Amino acid sequence: MRGAILYGPRDVRFEERDAPTIIEPTDAVIRISATCVCGSDLWPYRGISPVAKPTPMGHEYCGIVEEVGSAVTSIKAGQFVIGSFFASDNTCPHCQAGYQTSCQHKEFISTAQAPMLRVPLADGTLVATPDVPSAHLIPSLLAVSDVLGTGWFAADAANVEPGMTVAVVGDGAVGLLGVLSAKQMGAERIIAMSGHESRQKLAREFGATDIVTERGDEGVARIKELTYGIGADAVLECVGTQKSMMQAIRSTRPGGSVGYVGVPHGVELNGEELFFTHVHLHGGPAPVRRFLPELINLVWNGKINPGQVFDLTLPLDQVAEGYRAMDERRAIKTLLRP
Amino acid sequence: MRGAILYGPRDVRFEERDAPTIIEPTDAVIRISATCVCGSDLWPYRGISPVAKPTPMGHEYCGIVEEVGSAVTSIKAGQFVIGSFFASDNTCPHCQAGYQTSCQHKEFISTAQAPMLRVPLADGTLVATPDVPSAHLIPSLLAVSDVLGTGWFAADAANVEPGMTVAVVGDGAVGLLGVLSAKQMGAERIIAMSGHESRQKLAREFGATDIVTERGDEGVARIKELTYGIGADAVLECVGTQKSMMQAIRSTRPGGSVGYVGVPHGVELNGEELFFTHVHLHGGPAPVRRFLPELINLVWNGKINPGQVFDLTLPLDQVAEGYRAMDERRAIKTLLRP
Repeated sequence: MRGAILYGPRDVRFEERDAPTIIEPTDAVIRISATCVCGSDLWPYRGISPVAKPTPMGHEYCGIVEEVGSAVTSIKAGQFVIGSFFASDNTCPHCQAGYQTSCQHKEFISTAQAPMLRVPLADGTLVATPDVPSAHLIPSLLAVSDVLGTGWFAADAANVEPGMTVAVVGDGAVGLLGVLSAKQMGAERIIAMSGHESRQKLAREFGATDIVTERGDEGVARIKELTYGIGADAVLECVGTQKSMMQAIRSTRPGGSVGYVGVPHGVELNGEELFFTHVHLHGGPAPVRRFLPELINLVWNGKINPGQVFDLTLPLDQVAEGYRAMDERRAIKTLLRP
Repeated sequence: MRGAILYGPRDVRFEERDAPTIIEPTDAVIRISATCVCGSDLWPYRGISPVAKPTPMGHEYCGIVEEVGSAVTSIKAGQFVIGSFFASDNTCPHCQAGYQTSCQHKEFISTAQAPMLRVPLADGTLVATPDVPSAHLIPSLLAVSDVLGTGWFAADAANVEPGMTVAVVGDGAVGLLGVLSAKQMGAERIIAMSGHESRQKLAREFGATDIVTERGDEGVARIKELTYGIGADAVLECVGTQKSMMQAIRSTRPGGSVGYVGVPHGVELNGEELFFTHVHLHGGPAPVRRFLPELINLVWNGKINPGQVFDLTLPLDQVAEGYRAMDERRAIKTLLRP
């Protein structure tokens, strides 16, 4: 089969490699229905995270189970399944506490931009839909795999509750779905921070009530203005830079919460400043597995349509163009069909 | 009257200065029954925080109201009252959210090591006891003013709940009362990190079930060992150094919480490391006012005896020896009687 391989900065190739097989008895092999390019794929793509050797890419996926190992009991061939970017046993103490991305046996899924995928710890990792979905549901079910799950965790980590004022830093797909998540959790006022018209439009569709186009300290000042000098109750940090992190922390009211899901790159937090802000800080790699059943249910019943973040759909063999379009911000997020 | 004034590193003097008077109509003036030296007073005493000019000291107090301003309605002359180190109006949005140390009108109380004290925003700041207390209750009521309130906030910020395993970093008075607070909140296992025998003893009296004498990475390894490799559910950081902060964060299980109340000195948190720990982080200057009614009640009814942290009592005119004894760790905490 052929799959995506990153050779170095801005050099993604679609190349022949071995098709996956069952290695451990707890594995499943699935036939990918759809995969996509993640905002976090752009860090190595842009050369910000180094790439030591040619590296298969992709960690968002959904599809039909082709084969399972001898120890797999709950997942069966023929099921349509969704999993997270970390395989997890879902039984260790960290999984049981709802932090499957800190599973004691976690394995990163990194070869999903391909027609076939091996998923370790299949019983713990994969969740099957009630039936094989119709085609129109595929983008939204794919979104559940990471980008919605991550936006949802940002809102969950920021303790969003009904009636709150929520600000979202970052207008990438995760930030936009953070808006959708905050809306689902009952936020009354949702301030999306975005300077891009097409993203503002989608943010409003997902539930944003206000748009702030300013960034950094000016963005913080606007949030303060909009909240009568108090700050937002909850802020979702969906970027991962020093600037975005401080923007989030400084936009939060004392006693409010920052949920941060943008993988931090070069972020250093000054302890004394953080201390006097009185914010709650929580985040990390989103334990999407915790939310899969609930989010699949919301999509299945047509309550949410997170697949709208895919504004570019390409055949998998055009994966390089999929990366380029996101890198150049021509696309919010690229869906790839094998 | 005479009060404590810090002139520079290790130079505290007891000197004549003007007695306080009512300045604003919202003020009260109280006659101090007892005051004390705070761990945070040692930062400027040791020259770690610079002292630009001779500075009156002291922010922990309880006593009898001598006089109130014309706008004070709930506090009356003759009442025995306790307040926190920040005066707060207790009506602004931050106070209403329980973060009185971020009050929009907060004023730091900094002249309490003296026989008389002016307290701004008296109605919002002071809480009266049911009656004038008998002498034996004074140390515990004084402790409520800051050191217990701060230890309590550390446990509250770390989301301590019944049945949890809690670790406490720091064996100063705040850390020891963090142990007491965790015990009150129902923690099942409380691991005090201390290398000092007298402090270990008091930690055990307050409810510690385990003592870890190692510090830094070795301390973290011991906590992991004691928790079957998982980490503590909640960790109270009661020091404020880079080492103690990282010890706290690394001792916490994924999804667990660090409550930090040690004023950070030179602490920088690496965003990427923090991200992958999956901890909740919350802290800051303890909003003691939030807890005053509950903590006064616990002391008044003999449920807790936090005054045990005072292992040295001196007349106020020996305040310099009070600082020296704490600086040299001969005393855990010095109580001063005017």
